[in-house]
Amino acid sequence: MNDRRLPSWRPGATRDALVGFLDAAAALPDEQKVAYVDNDGTMWCEKPTYVQFDFFVEALKGAVAADASVGDRDEFAALISGDQERLGEIGLLRIAAALATLFEGKTPDQFTEAVRAFIASAHHVGLDRPTRTVVYQPMLELLDELRRIGFTVGIITGGGTEFVRALAPDLYDVAAELVVGSQIRYEFKRDDRGRPYLSRTADLSGEVNEGAPKVEHIQAMIGRQPILAVGNSAGDKEMLEWALAGDGPRLAMLINHDDADREYAYESKAGSFTEEEPILEMANRLGWLTVSIKNDWETVFSD
Amino acid sequence: MNDRRLPSWRPGATRDALVGFLDAAAALPDEQKVAYVDNDGTMWCEKPTYVQFDFFVEALKGAVAADASVGDRDEFAALISGDQERLGEIGLLRIAAALATLFEGKTPDQFTEAVRAFIASAHHVGLDRPTRTVVYQPMLELLDELRRIGFTVGIITGGGTEFVRALAPDLYDVAAELVVGSQIRYEFKRDDRGRPYLSRTADLSGEVNEGAPKVEHIQAMIGRQPILAVGNSAGDKEMLEWALAGDGPRLAMLINHDDADREYAYESKAGSFTEEEPILEMANRLGWLTVSIKNDWETVFSD
Repeated sequence: MNDRRLPSWRPGATRDALVGFLDAAAALPDEQKVAYVDNDGTMWCEKPTYVQFDFFVEALKGAVAADASVGDRDEFAALISGDQERLGEIGLLRIAAALATLFEGKTPDQFTEAVRAFIASAHHVGLDRPTRTVVYQPMLELLDELRRIGFTVGIITGGGTEFVRALAPDLYDVAAELVVGSQIRYEFKRDDRGRPYLSRTADLSGEVNEGAPKVEHIQAMIGRQPILAVGNSAGDKEMLEWALAGDGPRLAMLINHDDADREYAYESKAGSFTEEEPILEMANRLGWLTVSIKNDWETVFSD
Repeated sequence: MNDRRLPSWRPGATRDALVGFLDAAAALPDEQKVAYVDNDGTMWCEKPTYVQFDFFVEALKGAVAADASVGDRDEFAALISGDQERLGEIGLLRIAAALATLFEGKTPDQFTEAVRAFIASAHHVGLDRPTRTVVYQPMLELLDELRRIGFTVGIITGGGTEFVRALAPDLYDVAAELVVGSQIRYEFKRDDRGRPYLSRTADLSGEVNEGAPKVEHIQAMIGRQPILAVGNSAGDKEMLEWALAGDGPRLAMLINHDDADREYAYESKAGSFTEEEPILEMANRLGWLTVSIKNDWETVFSD
């Protein structure tokens, strides 16, 4: 059979398993057809740094250019100097909390515009292509195919909900309300004439969206259990397990970054506090389908 | 012109204003076409008691039949005896918190099934029709027309997110993820064999969804600002004001319950702590379109 679906997926056992799931799931009621796909390292390249990190560092440089004293803050000084040792000591959570203050007081529209202005011109130095094209073409084809057979397809991220919401409609054809991430709270305010608006705080609403909170947040935001989940790191473990918990066609898929020539080769350790299990062994043990970028994808990036 | 849209809306100034908004909004980009519609008193009848309240009281009676000692709890004793004075002293928030404990430990599927079993047989005594048909036919037509021209249409409720999510796909053709309400948190757990599941708590996640929180919660859950909002009570005030805040076609609509013959006649006071303004005067002052059930709707209920 000449199957024209998923043209960037090479023929073989991985593609067969994926297509087998699609064929089985197509007959389900639409209410059950829910897929959640991780963003960094699953929908697009996350190396050498997260795109969201690059966005915030650019915003920081702009803020320092406007007012040099902004750069005095401990976290910002380490970022600007690129002092990796100091950054490691400070830790990603404190860095993220400091960067969140850069957009305090902005409206949702202002934040969205800043993200869209960044992505319009950002260049990925390592891959030497526009950052908006470090999106994986095989994953775009999978999202399209899922929607064609009636799936609701959402994006999940350990990063900022609002950052990914600004990009998801254009990059992935995914609406803002289907993005589930770590969320910065907006506060209801009124201007001098009494008109309401929303003002961005620097406060995280709830927990960082990694591990079990990914499951709790999909339930809270979407209210439906995915029957397909795709991820690439230990932070996706509980979500992938949850997607497999139940009857009927279900699939958990792990993207393995094993292509140093076309992308990056690296392995995520299991993130659990009680074990150190290589993630490929975990995938085997838990019945996940592992996707090799090197072997299973004919094309890696979108244009 | 023979306009076949919205057949249950009587010709006149109200319908003209609504159709004028639809015509103007149709040309906008889909990303901007977002409508939020309140549930109780806007999508369906909320008198003499909220349907969700009837659901919980039925569940309480079932729990007491299985174990009479459940009924000893102060809030439950008042509910079962129907002691209005005592219920007033206890207050709706404490009553709701007590009722939430009835479903502690249930999975999302179990809770959804309980709600769907209730609605399948519940009868509205006052209107003498199945409860699932106390939905306003003109509002169903409006939701359909909005979706036809590319709108994302969500339901907002001061009641429970999960209760309305269980009903919205069938009653309103609205997906679970578009329901924004007061939310009971689900907790990630594992069974004896290590398989993950979600367990319902009795804890409200965040604030009760009335007033300014309705705006903050739409932003958090959906990430887009509605250009149409419909409500019927003071708890909708900030949301209606927010829908009007900005450029382009926008509409805030208030359902006025003025039809004692076909439904119920009552007026919601403004809920603000600092003023007591009748809601129809507020609607005039703030530029909302008031819909008279008596005059503007040819048909009230769905079949």
